[in-house]
Amino acid sequence: MDHGGHIAVVGAGLVGSGWALVFARAGYSVRVYDPSADVRSRVLSWASDSLDELQEAGLVADPKSILARIFVTETLDEAVNGAQYVQESVFETIPAKSEVSSQLDALIGPDTIVGSSSSGIPASKFTAECRNRDRFLIAHPVNPPHLVPVVELVPAPWTSASAVERVSALMRKVGQVPVQLNREIDGFVLNRLQGVLLNEAWALYEDGIASLADLDATIAHGLGLRWSFMGPFETIDLNAPGGIDDYASRLRDLYAGMVRPPKGPWPDEVIRQATEERRAVLPSESLASKRAWRDAVLARLAAFKKQQGLAG
Amino acid sequence: MDHGGHIAVVGAGLVGSGWALVFARAGYSVRVYDPSADVRSRVLSWASDSLDELQEAGLVADPKSILARIFVTETLDEAVNGAQYVQESVFETIPAKSEVSSQLDALIGPDTIVGSSSSGIPASKFTAECRNRDRFLIAHPVNPPHLVPVVELVPAPWTSASAVERVSALMRKVGQVPVQLNREIDGFVLNRLQGVLLNEAWALYEDGIASLADLDATIAHGLGLRWSFMGPFETIDLNAPGGIDDYASRLRDLYAGMVRPPKGPWPDEVIRQATEERRAVLPSESLASKRAWRDAVLARLAAFKKQQGLAG
Repeated sequence: MDHGGHIAVVGAGLVGSGWALVFARAGYSVRVYDPSADVRSRVLSWASDSLDELQEAGLVADPKSILARIFVTETLDEAVNGAQYVQESVFETIPAKSEVSSQLDALIGPDTIVGSSSSGIPASKFTAECRNRDRFLIAHPVNPPHLVPVVELVPAPWTSASAVERVSALMRKVGQVPVQLNREIDGFVLNRLQGVLLNEAWALYEDGIASLADLDATIAHGLGLRWSFMGPFETIDLNAPGGIDDYASRLRDLYAGMVRPPKGPWPDEVIRQATEERRAVLPSESLASKRAWRDAVLARLAAFKKQQGLAG
Repeated sequence: MDHGGHIAVVGAGLVGSGWALVFARAGYSVRVYDPSADVRSRVLSWASDSLDELQEAGLVADPKSILARIFVTETLDEAVNGAQYVQESVFETIPAKSEVSSQLDALIGPDTIVGSSSSGIPASKFTAECRNRDRFLIAHPVNPPHLVPVVELVPAPWTSASAVERVSALMRKVGQVPVQLNREIDGFVLNRLQGVLLNEAWALYEDGIASLADLDATIAHGLGLRWSFMGPFETIDLNAPGGIDDYASRLRDLYAGMVRPPKGPWPDEVIRQATEERRAVLPSESLASKRAWRDAVLARLAAFKKQQGLAG
């Protein structure tokens, strides 16, 4: 890209709406479609509120002109017709992804690429039957995509290299940080890294080693600080005098020794306890306002990183 | 605490020197000892440079008066005599830790507590023979401790509850964030959480799923952003409409399915490849300056979190 044409956003929940902001913020004309009239009716007011937050954080200068680039359409065809790229963010089940992919397959132009926001289901599970399956892939964001820039690009075995390259270039152009997987794997990279950390944190909690709050503090006031601007390999490269190989030779046996035999899924009783601990510090009715707080902090953190030259 | 008396810092490499700053910054008189005259000679100039950095980030107002509270002593006795708390940060081997613990055991007063900066060796491995072993525990920081506030407090089976409580109170008082382990476990909490993530990252790299740089970007521009101010449990609590139990019921099977059978230590050949990738972006001769850059960013990030009310 840029192959001309607008960007289509299909599925306009929180993820899809965030994507609309990402593309509109970068100057693209965006057409948004969702099968639910109720969901469609909320897109623009949500975008407007979020743009105010971005402006407050110093991340956008002219919210009005960005908002003016987002069009909500009444039909899928209107959204997709003439699009250079479709970002699909419908409900994450194989039937839902299969249905929308088949619809898109019939509507897209000869150069259009379709990226799915799927967080774990690989494209091979729902694009096999598509005529244009070489132009379908996964483009998995973190929620909310307009505040957390990473996007995992995961090709199906039949996705063309040029489709991956074009989406990668588009993502860079709009200020996201694409990471490229060479092939499909369950959970992709992001949720595998999150998953192993969560599995260990749940196990430590189950074993009574530390409280939920203390396990959280170990990340929020410890490991997470370096990881907010350096990855784990860069971190260990700087953590031994001779670099990453020096670190590995000192510590790989320690880390190998910590591996647990596989446990099953997190047990019901442990989840119940954890829920009690969480609800004691954050009642259910405050979840929504805490999410808004999180997004406001992420916006200010994004502004901080930009100002420090760390935005990727 | 405060039980009166100064703070002793024993072992004055980077970790010990960082600890000296932590206590002096909070108003304590600090006596620093290291058996190496060479190491001792570098403490004050390092502290002075680091204080300039903290001042630049807006984290301290009066570097000179802080520096004036740090005294380097010629003997261990001078450092420890009359101390209310000893932070020990000598080389991390069982013989070195045993030797210094036995020396400290003979020198400390009746109320003195000794915390070891050990990152993985539990106190039971080197304090069993101490007469005052109920006042020895682990107080493990992240490097550098004056920029990353978390401290793991890990009691040996014979550490008294009051010793843990006193160190916890002291750590809060000096602006650190203590997390308390209920009992010893290999790697404690912090390095277990880091370890599982590193093990998975190395495995993904070994399998050719993604480049080292892209694995790093997944954290630095993705997972690490939320984790820099929220722990993993708080993160998932906000990541499903109904909170942590809703999240768990949706995703625990996915995460259970990702568990790998234990692999051995990271293989030599993979470490060699990773080292090549890292040295191509950061030559060996630039490691030291990159570490200084990391610390400067951590200082500015700490200032950002303080200003946002996120400092813990």
